[in-house]
Amino acid sequence: MTTKYQRLADILRESMKKNASLGITKLPTEQALSDQYKVSRQTVRQALSLLQKEGLIQKKRGSGSYPTGLAAGSDKNHIALITSYSDDYIYPALIHDIQSLLMESGYQVNLYSTNDHVSKEREILKDLLRNPVRGLIIEGCKSALPNPNLDLYEKLKLNGVSVVFIHSIYRDLSGFPCIKDDDYSGGYTLVNHLIKQNHSQIGGIFKYDDTKGLDCYHGYLSAMCDAGLSIEEEHIAWFSSEDLNLLRKKQDTSFLLEFIHKQLKSCSAVICHNDEIAYWLIKELKYAGQKVPEDLSVACMNYSYLNDLSPVRITALSHEPHELAKTTVNTLLNMLHGLSGESVNLSLQLLTRNSISALNR
Amino acid sequence: MTTKYQRLADILRESMKKNASLGITKLPTEQALSDQYKVSRQTVRQALSLLQKEGLIQKKRGSGSYPTGLAAGSDKNHIALITSYSDDYIYPALIHDIQSLLMESGYQVNLYSTNDHVSKEREILKDLLRNPVRGLIIEGCKSALPNPNLDLYEKLKLNGVSVVFIHSIYRDLSGFPCIKDDDYSGGYTLVNHLIKQNHSQIGGIFKYDDTKGLDCYHGYLSAMCDAGLSIEEEHIAWFSSEDLNLLRKKQDTSFLLEFIHKQLKSCSAVICHNDEIAYWLIKELKYAGQKVPEDLSVACMNYSYLNDLSPVRITALSHEPHELAKTTVNTLLNMLHGLSGESVNLSLQLLTRNSISALNR
Repeated sequence: MTTKYQRLADILRESMKKNASLGITKLPTEQALSDQYKVSRQTVRQALSLLQKEGLIQKKRGSGSYPTGLAAGSDKNHIALITSYSDDYIYPALIHDIQSLLMESGYQVNLYSTNDHVSKEREILKDLLRNPVRGLIIEGCKSALPNPNLDLYEKLKLNGVSVVFIHSIYRDLSGFPCIKDDDYSGGYTLVNHLIKQNHSQIGGIFKYDDTKGLDCYHGYLSAMCDAGLSIEEEHIAWFSSEDLNLLRKKQDTSFLLEFIHKQLKSCSAVICHNDEIAYWLIKELKYAGQKVPEDLSVACMNYSYLNDLSPVRITALSHEPHELAKTTVNTLLNMLHGLSGESVNLSLQLLTRNSISALNR
Repeated sequence: MTTKYQRLADILRESMKKNASLGITKLPTEQALSDQYKVSRQTVRQALSLLQKEGLIQKKRGSGSYPTGLAAGSDKNHIALITSYSDDYIYPALIHDIQSLLMESGYQVNLYSTNDHVSKEREILKDLLRNPVRGLIIEGCKSALPNPNLDLYEKLKLNGVSVVFIHSIYRDLSGFPCIKDDDYSGGYTLVNHLIKQNHSQIGGIFKYDDTKGLDCYHGYLSAMCDAGLSIEEEHIAWFSSEDLNLLRKKQDTSFLLEFIHKQLKSCSAVICHNDEIAYWLIKELKYAGQKVPEDLSVACMNYSYLNDLSPVRITALSHEPHELAKTTVNTLLNMLHGLSGESVNLSLQLLTRNSISALNR
């Protein structure tokens, strides 16, 4: 036979679900619950203790009880995390950050990686539709290209899965929050910084199948135009997911060699899609007998451990450590509490290192 | 001393300008003009004859007088036509068509080409802002990438220049008509046709910096998904304006060779961005000892004279001859008459030739 407090707990579990969808993220006071359900304060306290043991609410001293966003039954509190890659570059750290933060809040994280292939993404999303999770954090594949899986994101949303994009979001998909760097402003900042050091022949290398690449390029264009400098098409190079795969798996730098020999010959400076590209570029420049920054100044859009490994520390853009993971997890947790998830463009700060030298006027 | 009919002609010239901006494309009847301006029918007829001599109006028997859209002073009736290229592939024929149609309507055409460089485009647009034309027909550069010249298009529009885009339009630019092929449906049609011939391993090669390329690819993806076929990332290749420049200027087919050796090995069929790419691909396949369609079926998105030159006639998409030029010129003339210009997606018909063979189930 169920007791009074268990029945009240049942009622509260249901009402929390409803309230979550209304964005109500606090439980009524003990007195209000006692009045509302015509039970003693003691029964209310027992019911709340049960919910606390189940991990469904959190008591804050002097403030009241708050739903944790967790569902009853720990097997239901799974979050899927899908990244393009998992074992190289920024990914292990990013995955670790997100996983730790979600575990602290009582969630299990299921990891997937797409290798930046829409076919693999499709497979994973279909699997998630068959075996639903509470939430999904996803780094899209080739976000600048049309994507065949948009229908699956809509289906997941309809099935109650909270979805947050990181790094970039598909152009034709709306209604999902995306937590990303402000890459347009980033590209602008780097180029502007180089122009202030009297550089005018500035090259750039960007990933063409990724909105991050297009946004950096856009910032580059704007900074050049605003400074009245002419844009030299031959100073720009583009690379693809496939080029990046070959670089990561086989250290195949052929697209960088081509960039050095075809695009950079008449440049005094260059900005790179990220510090991974800058790292490899500086290595190849060294093999080609060119010194950074004496022969060529180099700047890049991201900061990671590769910057520390580089023979020349690279002027780069960066945000607070762990900021992407923290903002992403907070956004997802808000959504699991029933609040709406908002997109965030994280602002980037310039870290001046020794990869840039000023030109004499 | 100006005569009565010359004064009336002056008034009508001004009122036609105003009416054009209101979308009024017919003059009042002789009787109505005579009543309105309190002059004889004879004076009205003389004024209209003068305007007709100046090329400003056209009389249609039994219907009345219509503004031609031309401005007073033949030096003012210049239209700029900016294409990516001018001397190869579809361009000479397209330019000829547009030029002839505009000349028939009394316009002079100034030709420019950008070589698909946004810097060259910028230079031309700035020149047009200094030396205004009545209208501009423009094939954008690298339409899938952010463009630094959008502000100049807005300025031209504010200065009263009617602007029509052909082939593709920048993603972030709205409020300008674009006359283009329905490339999404085209890509879908070609892939669907191949699937009906039992092909399932279908490759594709598209231009990544052009919205046409993204639209074809999108049609490809949809057709594959709708047929329940899996999308194999390694069957897709992308090329750039720069690759195309090298192909056109130096017959450099290195990106096609890479496509043949890396992407097409396990494919039984392929669709190409246009028949120019298909033409060169078939040539390279031949050198590599592969037969079309026995070893590989080939289809392409456009039909031009290159199809006739190809050793194998290629299954392609096509519309009525001269349809792009006709629709573009009509749209521009409507705008010069004060009507609004609407975008058109020209539908494409499948032309079945002998470059595709059916597979046995």
